[in-house]
Amino acid sequence: MASSVTVLRTVREVREWRGDAGDVGLVPTMGALHGGHRRLVERAAADGVAIASIFVNPTQFAPNEDYRAYPRSEEADLALLADAGCAAAFIPGVEEMYRPGEDMRVVPGDIASRLEGAARPGHFAGVCTVVAKLFGMVRPARTYFSHKDFQQLRVVQTMVRDLALWIRVVPFEIVREPDGLAMSSRNAYLTPDERRRAVALSRGLFAARDEWARGTRDAATLRATVRGIASDAGTPEYVSIADPVTLRELEGRAERAVVSLACRVGRARLIDNVLLGMSLDELARL
Amino acid sequence: MASSVTVLRTVREVREWRGDAGDVGLVPTMGALHGGHRRLVERAAADGVAIASIFVNPTQFAPNEDYRAYPRSEEADLALLADAGCAAAFIPGVEEMYRPGEDMRVVPGDIASRLEGAARPGHFAGVCTVVAKLFGMVRPARTYFSHKDFQQLRVVQTMVRDLALWIRVVPFEIVREPDGLAMSSRNAYLTPDERRRAVALSRGLFAARDEWARGTRDAATLRATVRGIASDAGTPEYVSIADPVTLRELEGRAERAVVSLACRVGRARLIDNVLLGMSLDELARL
Repeated sequence: MASSVTVLRTVREVREWRGDAGDVGLVPTMGALHGGHRRLVERAAADGVAIASIFVNPTQFAPNEDYRAYPRSEEADLALLADAGCAAAFIPGVEEMYRPGEDMRVVPGDIASRLEGAARPGHFAGVCTVVAKLFGMVRPARTYFSHKDFQQLRVVQTMVRDLALWIRVVPFEIVREPDGLAMSSRNAYLTPDERRRAVALSRGLFAARDEWARGTRDAATLRATVRGIASDAGTPEYVSIADPVTLRELEGRAERAVVSLACRVGRARLIDNVLLGMSLDELARL
Repeated sequence: MASSVTVLRTVREVREWRGDAGDVGLVPTMGALHGGHRRLVERAAADGVAIASIFVNPTQFAPNEDYRAYPRSEEADLALLADAGCAAAFIPGVEEMYRPGEDMRVVPGDIASRLEGAARPGHFAGVCTVVAKLFGMVRPARTYFSHKDFQQLRVVQTMVRDLALWIRVVPFEIVREPDGLAMSSRNAYLTPDERRRAVALSRGLFAARDEWARGTRDAATLRATVRGIASDAGTPEYVSIADPVTLRELEGRAERAVVSLACRVGRARLIDNVLLGMSLDELARL
């Protein structure tokens, strides 16, 4: 039996709900919640009092991206949050998050320069700014991020360290559909045929993981394996074998790696990755 | 009889000193403390537990500026802080504040684009970044800034609002030498002759304040008054009549204004201002 979720729409309401004493865990989301979000919230609720934010953040979308089209489903989201044991949902309007003309930004450096940062200029400044604001508004003790958006996780970890925010960033596994496709709100854009093709992305990554397990460490070999299989879904924007800490591209022998890709499948731009030679616990301790 | 100041040199020491319970007031400084700093600390100590930080922040200096030459006087600073009732001094080294290669920045927007921001590109990104870091490290309930660096005060106020930091920014008056010169660590650069000439800066500002008191509201008139007198100290880089909230330059009739200037006098680049038609209490409530 699901309990109800307290819906907070203003910073004032968050502060009143939050009080001084609480020790809460924040799951920042853009809504359109799926099983991956559910698992994050369940983990946050297991650790203490969970609050999820739902905010489609305009500053992290470029003008040519899918800000307007991004799926919004508040009623279903609230039902999922209640069922997952979430105590509160912070659902601000754009004008509650950003005053008119607000133009201060938290701008990440080198960690955001490659991969998604290169493909989406300004994206991570928007992410850092809204996440810093959410941290300021909610003051969580812990925050939960899936490594599905691996670079986002690393950028947030870097921001938390560099701005000396007293928040523990908890990295969480990627939750997948039974056939391997990483859960994503943008999967809703896929037609049935595109959905069938999209599984090639995770198959390519899993093939690299299997090669790694068999001892392959050469970055070029791993990259070629992923590209060969993932191309059945479409032409990847990039296939990357990068250091999981710096996100710099690896050449030659890898000791640890995040193998990641981005690929447009129909209307959806999908990303996915596997982490090799490094555990989420090690990642959490960075 | 002055009590002693607890000297903290690492973030770990600050956190241990700070604990969870405290409700402290932070006075960020670059050291070379003078009577203006003393008054800020006395105010912070009157409000609760005062901590001052002393850190000459490299990221707010351009390569051609006086980072290396900036006066450093830790022993005298600690004596002043003790005498002013300061409980602790946070004096980190550069490598304690910034890890190697750290390049994330808090970048202010329009509020930082004119005046000092135009004269010193990147300056306010450096200020915001280090102040955000200090806020993260110390977690003060209150922080104290003189309006001597008026734009800095407004930039910090804007950052605190936009990043939803739960910190009260307390604006404080400009403390002046008996002849009117605003106290500044950079006054130490002045030769006796330059010191005598420098008083023309505050005389120009006071003349505008007197005109305002007599009913003058025309921005161009006020600007000409300041420039006419202040030029005895040197050629001002700028003389500005700006809105104290937006810092946009005013033309025609002013309802409220910050009259500010920057002027190089010998080796010293000096700034000063007067606030007209607006009280510090009103400024504090922005």
